[in-house]
Amino acid sequence: MNEKRFKRLPRHIGIIPDGNRRWAVKNGYEKQDGYRFGIQPGFELYRLCLELGIQEMTFYGFTIDNTKRPAVQTRAFQKACVDAVQNLANQDADLLIVGNTNSPLFPPELLPYSERVKFGRGLMKINFLVNYGWNWDLSCSLKNTDAKFNGNLANTIASADISRIDLIIRWGGRRRLSGFLPIQSIYADIYVLDELWPDFKPEQFYRALEWYQEQDVTLGG
Amino acid sequence: MNEKRFKRLPRHIGIIPDGNRRWAVKNGYEKQDGYRFGIQPGFELYRLCLELGIQEMTFYGFTIDNTKRPAVQTRAFQKACVDAVQNLANQDADLLIVGNTNSPLFPPELLPYSERVKFGRGLMKINFLVNYGWNWDLSCSLKNTDAKFNGNLANTIASADISRIDLIIRWGGRRRLSGFLPIQSIYADIYVLDELWPDFKPEQFYRALEWYQEQDVTLGG
Repeated sequence: MNEKRFKRLPRHIGIIPDGNRRWAVKNGYEKQDGYRFGIQPGFELYRLCLELGIQEMTFYGFTIDNTKRPAVQTRAFQKACVDAVQNLANQDADLLIVGNTNSPLFPPELLPYSERVKFGRGLMKINFLVNYGWNWDLSCSLKNTDAKFNGNLANTIASADISRIDLIIRWGGRRRLSGFLPIQSIYADIYVLDELWPDFKPEQFYRALEWYQEQDVTLGG
Repeated sequence: MNEKRFKRLPRHIGIIPDGNRRWAVKNGYEKQDGYRFGIQPGFELYRLCLELGIQEMTFYGFTIDNTKRPAVQTRAFQKACVDAVQNLANQDADLLIVGNTNSPLFPPELLPYSERVKFGRGLMKINFLVNYGWNWDLSCSLKNTDAKFNGNLANTIASADISRIDLIIRWGGRRRLSGFLPIQSIYADIYVLDELWPDFKPEQFYRALEWYQEQDVTLGG
């Protein structure tokens, strides 16, 4: 893969791996079966980012809103998140999980990663949003007396350890953010792929990077 | 235009009218001259939305970040905003301007609209962001004791009077939000047109609406 050359790479990439249920139905499975086909793609994408020297990645696991779906689906995406994270914990990664841990819907196996943990040589920051909610994230500021004092919200939200995102890649065709880290996504370039996440191919990722390097980053200036 | 039929229309449309400076350079003007060519398109778009019965529109005027640009540009987009708003104030509109009024960069002519004002028959809510900043907007919650009490941010931000956005249409090709109402944009579908804003044509707007009506709105469920 290293023959690919990019003149400008994003420092931090956000991943919205959408389309698991649609993929399952299309391929003759039950909806909830789609999630387990999304684990291997995440791992492949992690390897590609590592090769390119990407410094930080954030995966959209599941949200508080998502847990209103049928219980069999909720159990399936909870398990897929646990499997994906435990897989990454064997790699060189600086792992952090951000989400509401004060809830029975947060998988207890993942509690050890709710503060950043370094595995192997670290090499890349990987953030996973698990039982995450944008309102939960931002409303954390309201309980913070420092925030009240300095009037600055961004440093006191629950996800304050996750840096600004340069490029968001969304699989599954929907052109929206769906509550994905609203503060860190403010200036992100958003690339939407029509392919469903379990159909991940490296070429899709490279297509997003090729598009990104042609973008003019202004940060509003 | 009424021959167009849409089976599902957005209730609230956000408009990011980008590309004024690029249009000016392409057409042999100075960069700052682009903004005045963006006033008529805004008015045309307002008429189209009114015909279709759209209930609410929000225009991205200028941001606190934008005012770091050369003074001649800042003066030009300030003037364009004043002209656009004064134009709308002669129409049937429920007008509200949201932005930091405690700043010399906020055009004093627009102060009367910093609380919602009804003109003619009202008919449509129109919001204009003028000297707006996402951090300014959200950080307002921190000063609100109700917010601290009930732990809910969304109802106490500076832009709390602006409702959730269904469809964001951005002109000028950039696939990003650039700080546009992060809370109201959480679940919005985002449609990007490559055409520059002063080149606005009704057909571009209809293209966005045709795309929107095929989208599946889930709000995370």
